[in-house]
Amino acid sequence: MPHIDLPKEYPGIRSLFVFRPETAAPLNALVQTLLHNPHPSLSPGERELIATYVSSLNNCKYCSTVHGAIAKHHLLNGDVVQQVKTNPETAPISNKLKALLKIAWQVQLSGKEVSSSHVEAARKEGATDIEIHDTVLIAAAFSMFNRYVDGLATWAPDDPEVYDRMGKQRAEEGYLTPPFKIQPQSTE
Amino acid sequence: MPHIDLPKEYPGIRSLFVFRPETAAPLNALVQTLLHNPHPSLSPGERELIATYVSSLNNCKYCSTVHGAIAKHHLLNGDVVQQVKTNPETAPISNKLKALLKIAWQVQLSGKEVSSSHVEAARKEGATDIEIHDTVLIAAAFSMFNRYVDGLATWAPDDPEVYDRMGKQRAEEGYLTPPFKIQPQSTE
Repeated sequence: MPHIDLPKEYPGIRSLFVFRPETAAPLNALVQTLLHNPHPSLSPGERELIATYVSSLNNCKYCSTVHGAIAKHHLLNGDVVQQVKTNPETAPISNKLKALLKIAWQVQLSGKEVSSSHVEAARKEGATDIEIHDTVLIAAAFSMFNRYVDGLATWAPDDPEVYDRMGKQRAEEGYLTPPFKIQPQSTE
Repeated sequence: MPHIDLPKEYPGIRSLFVFRPETAAPLNALVQTLLHNPHPSLSPGERELIATYVSSLNNCKYCSTVHGAIAKHHLLNGDVVQQVKTNPETAPISNKLKALLKIAWQVQLSGKEVSSSHVEAARKEGATDIEIHDTVLIAAAFSMFNRYVDGLATWAPDDPEVYDRMGKQRAEEGYLTPPFKIQPQSTE
């Protein structure tokens, strides 16, 4: 049961965006810029993996499953998403992305946990200032989104098919199109 | 020393906004909406107190000092800001704001820490759905801003006068006007 009166036909952050469109606009503009818009070097799939990994560290079922589905649709590979969630070190991703995910992990704990050695390790694998910046901001932003979604106890569907549809929509359309309604779960 | 090459004449998040204007736009639109724009019931000063308190819990020197200064300029009372940072329970604020700050504290720990009893306690003091929503989102947003500012090791001035000028600017102008340059500290 959500802590406030939210529209039942939208799960997770979608219900919050419908409840409060004034804050939905800048929040959607932020993820559109950070995750979907063209980037000098990180693909949308790589950026979604960072978002998925942080959401997974925060045990946010809704965010980790939706962004995992978006990453899957970008990368055309669901296996790599599961491996990143389980252990990025052994996942079939570049060493640069592994180093960036280590930075994201520190940010999830606290901004102060990011040390010069984490940043140098990423630079050794070729990470640029923009990549380091965006990794920190994606990890920080999902430290917000996860708290927003769980702090108001929004409902998260159980059906993987629902996440797959949401993932396909966001991978194809980005974050600025309206959400579709889904059937609320009877247990909610 | 910041982890990436940032303009030295801007401290904290201001240096990041100059470095990456693409993400600065939605982030500034978010705080403008959450903290500065007219609100059905929470004053800008009360909302800045929530931001200051969360930043203080995260030990983010730059954010807690700037938002404390903004709160002081809104409330025309620096003493209450210090008391909220030290212990909201004994600060001269309303019982409703105390209950909302307890929710903010839980969000700072993790979204999952917010329980029905925290929310009911706030409702008993008259808190509305919008107030509970905005408290959770302000606390979540500063869980992002604090990580962003400290995760990239931006520099924080030591001079209280600098924070007072920044606080006055944002209390009077909101978040959408350009930052002013300040003299970088020689120790940086």
